[in-house]
Amino acid sequence: MITFLQKTVYLLLLAGSLLPLQAQNRIVVFQSDFGLKDGAVSAMKGVASGVSPDLKLYDITHEIPPYNTWEAAYRLAQTVPYWPAGTVFVSVVDPGVGTDRKSVVLQTKAGHFIVTPDNGTLTLIARAEGIAAVREIDEAVNRRRDSRQSYTFHGRDVYAYTGARLAAGAITFEQVGPALPDTVLRIPYQPATLDKGVLKGTIDILDVQYGNLWTNIPDSLFRQLQAPAGSQLQVTLYHKGRQVYRGRMPYAHTFGDVPTGQPLAYLNSLMHLSFALNQGSFAEKHHIESGSDWSVEVRRAL
Amino acid sequence: MITFLQKTVYLLLLAGSLLPLQAQNRIVVFQSDFGLKDGAVSAMKGVASGVSPDLKLYDITHEIPPYNTWEAAYRLAQTVPYWPAGTVFVSVVDPGVGTDRKSVVLQTKAGHFIVTPDNGTLTLIARAEGIAAVREIDEAVNRRRDSRQSYTFHGRDVYAYTGARLAAGAITFEQVGPALPDTVLRIPYQPATLDKGVLKGTIDILDVQYGNLWTNIPDSLFRQLQAPAGSQLQVTLYHKGRQVYRGRMPYAHTFGDVPTGQPLAYLNSLMHLSFALNQGSFAEKHHIESGSDWSVEVRRAL
Amino acid sequence: MITFLQKTVYLLLLAGSLLPLQAQNRIVVFQSDFGLKDGAVSAMKGVASGVSPDLKLYDITHEIPPYNTWEAAYRLAQTVPYWPAGTVFVSVVDPGVGTDRKSVVLQTKAGHFIVTPDNGTLTLIARAEGIAAVREIDEAVNRRRDSRQSYTFHGRDVYAYTGARLAAGAITFEQVGPALPDTVLRIPYQPATLDKGVLKGTIDILDVQYGNLWTNIPDSLFRQLQAPAGSQLQVTLYHKGRQVYRGRMPYAHTFGDVPTGQPLAYLNSLMHLSFALNQGSFAEKHHIESGSDWSVEVRRAL
Repeated sequence: MITFLQKTVYLLLLAGSLLPLQAQNRIVVFQSDFGLKDGAVSAMKGVASGVSPDLKLYDITHEIPPYNTWEAAYRLAQTVPYWPAGTVFVSVVDPGVGTDRKSVVLQTKAGHFIVTPDNGTLTLIARAEGIAAVREIDEAVNRRRDSRQSYTFHGRDVYAYTGARLAAGAITFEQVGPALPDTVLRIPYQPATLDKGVLKGTIDILDVQYGNLWTNIPDSLFRQLQAPAGSQLQVTLYHKGRQVYRGRMPYAHTFGDVPTGQPLAYLNSLMHLSFALNQGSFAEKHHIESGSDWSVEVRRAL
Repeated sequence: MITFLQKTVYLLLLAGSLLPLQAQNRIVVFQSDFGLKDGAVSAMKGVASGVSPDLKLYDITHEIPPYNTWEAAYRLAQTVPYWPAGTVFVSVVDPGVGTDRKSVVLQTKAGHFIVTPDNGTLTLIARAEGIAAVREIDEAVNRRRDSRQSYTFHGRDVYAYTGARLAAGAITFEQVGPALPDTVLRIPYQPATLDKGVLKGTIDILDVQYGNLWTNIPDSLFRQLQAPAGSQLQVTLYHKGRQVYRGRMPYAHTFGDVPTGQPLAYLNSLMHLSFALNQGSFAEKHHIESGSDWSVEVRRAL
Repeated sequence: MITFLQKTVYLLLLAGSLLPLQAQNRIVVFQSDFGLKDGAVSAMKGVASGVSPDLKLYDITHEIPPYNTWEAAYRLAQTVPYWPAGTVFVSVVDPGVGTDRKSVVLQTKAGHFIVTPDNGTLTLIARAEGIAAVREIDEAVNRRRDSRQSYTFHGRDVYAYTGARLAAGAITFEQVGPALPDTVLRIPYQPATLDKGVLKGTIDILDVQYGNLWTNIPDSLFRQLQAPAGSQLQVTLYHKGRQVYRGRMPYAHTFGDVPTGQPLAYLNSLMHLSFALNQGSFAEKHHIESGSDWSVEVRRAL
């Protein structure tokens, strides 16, 4: 009897102490272009809670513009690195639903898992964190029961279900399905470069709430321009090669360093060169959008 | 002492193994027409967390159009079945707050609990899952302390409080209040029918994010039309009996089966006949809305 | 061996029974002006989950109008009191990011903790719950590792990180940083008064979803006007001292007491005098906004 008790207590303690060492931490984070006005996101979370009611379910955003896989890729790169290793992400921006695009789970070298159609959504996080392994979801096994007849809601029936089972430890990463080569479908885009004192790059995305422009130029490249805080930059913006803005602005550490309404260049929370108006919207005032069509040149001003 | 230890360990094990068998799984899912711009939803979750900080609190949507009990009913039917049995839902779309509409908890035959004013919100989930029991909330007992003077926020003081106590096991379903007859207030609507090769039904709702039209015609009825994938359908839409759209489109398994911008009929994630433009908005292009005023006829095209 | 078992079981039981007595309940509630379209809120929650995956993370709203510290203050006052003692709030509405405004944690007399820049955000909750203590965040210690170079996302790197560590018990309140005087920066505003039968006050905020006007006139003051339910009030609204509305309406317990579209005065869920149209938008119909520029006078109608 003591033996039984010993084993029992030992197992209880073991369970408590070892769980945090597992690859998965029982957290699932969702992203989609579904919006929050209907029940689609809730149905996904319901399926996940049905796998295990103890999962913790969070969100990146569900306001990705419909079918915009570039922005889906961007939001993953913006957020995944800040979640602990072992977190499982389920991203459902899927213009090719029903076509032969693959359903995959990417394990990054930082220990994050991303469940998604392989349609470009993984472009930036694969670059940022590196590819540890890619597996194709075996839908013969990893598919919610009674969902055979439904052709259109992979997000709920395959992705949320598989992500929840992986996060809950109901399946291992190997049980997701067969291993694929260590590559993902990548959306082409203009890289950041520095040549003869001219920085070039693209306006990756708008910081939509404030109208700031976020480029793909990292601090490491910007520092090579040798522009200290307070120095003036000349910034030119192009849409499809046509100049749409040209102006001077200081490189500043904080918005408060320039008067209200004035432009500044700064490093955003991802340490990328960005442009803003202090307490205003740069994008709205100058009609700037984002994506691979929108490029930028930055020089030190004379 | 062994006896004490035995009992203790036994109880610990029992608690762990039996909890999943309880009616309630400590999950509460909220729905309302409050929007997310103010603090009303957060106040409801605060009250629920005060009942037990271990509850898991999720949402369907809080963007139900104000006072629209039909859409509240629709969102429940769209999502409740995907959550595990024992989940407690709190729905607060309440145009009659302060009138003599009853505050109830519905237990469905599938084991879900829905806390709501009985104002039509239960129309569709009661049909879909069946009524196991209905109880009226006894507000003399099931009301947040110190809330007597507040006449207008039943969502927080009665519904969230009662739902949380039910989910946490602080009260049993019987302790909600007196049993009512096994009926709920139902909103009248046009049922789906098939007569002489013509399917009739209503446009239940828009898939708002994409502009797709979702009808109340289930796959079981549609299959009797004997229209295989790829066959052409003639679809006519009416608003208050006046024709507002007439066109041909294929019945397709996936959006990718038709060119970009072209219409298709498909079975949505609820297995209801629906209409869409591939990567476009059918509702916006043809000015279609939803509700009992919007009806549809579908024939096989000649 | 018995001793080991005894101790083990005792500790397991102790852990279960004592945890609820801790000051912190492992709940963190976020508020910001970030919106939900990008990944900023998710990055904050990721950092918090990295501190401890067992935290429960909720929201007030992320739709505070950009830089509007008055509304941030209002939303805290509207929601904090409904969460259990020990809850940690992280509010990031920070027009002065990068300036010398202090980063603080307020402990209220009701046992809530609020992590925020001290920029007026604490005006109303400090009045409502009282100040137990204020500490300045020591950013040399309480700052996410590897975030030294990032100048602009205090919400993620300092506030979310510190709030999560406080909620998880990784630091005590004392370890937040040095104690400050028991005061916070307060936004000036017009108080509610009653003089010679005339109630004066301000329109604190709109109940945006419905278009109702919420004043800062509490029920205790309103009751001194001795206007029973059903009695008529004369309500005058001013914008910067200019009259923008004058009308009669009953004081009613519920919206259903007046016909559809008609105005009423009522006590809202915070027990403040408010104005509405039954199933309509008072604010939209009469072009009323909110803030310290918008004032109100209320008399009993003759």
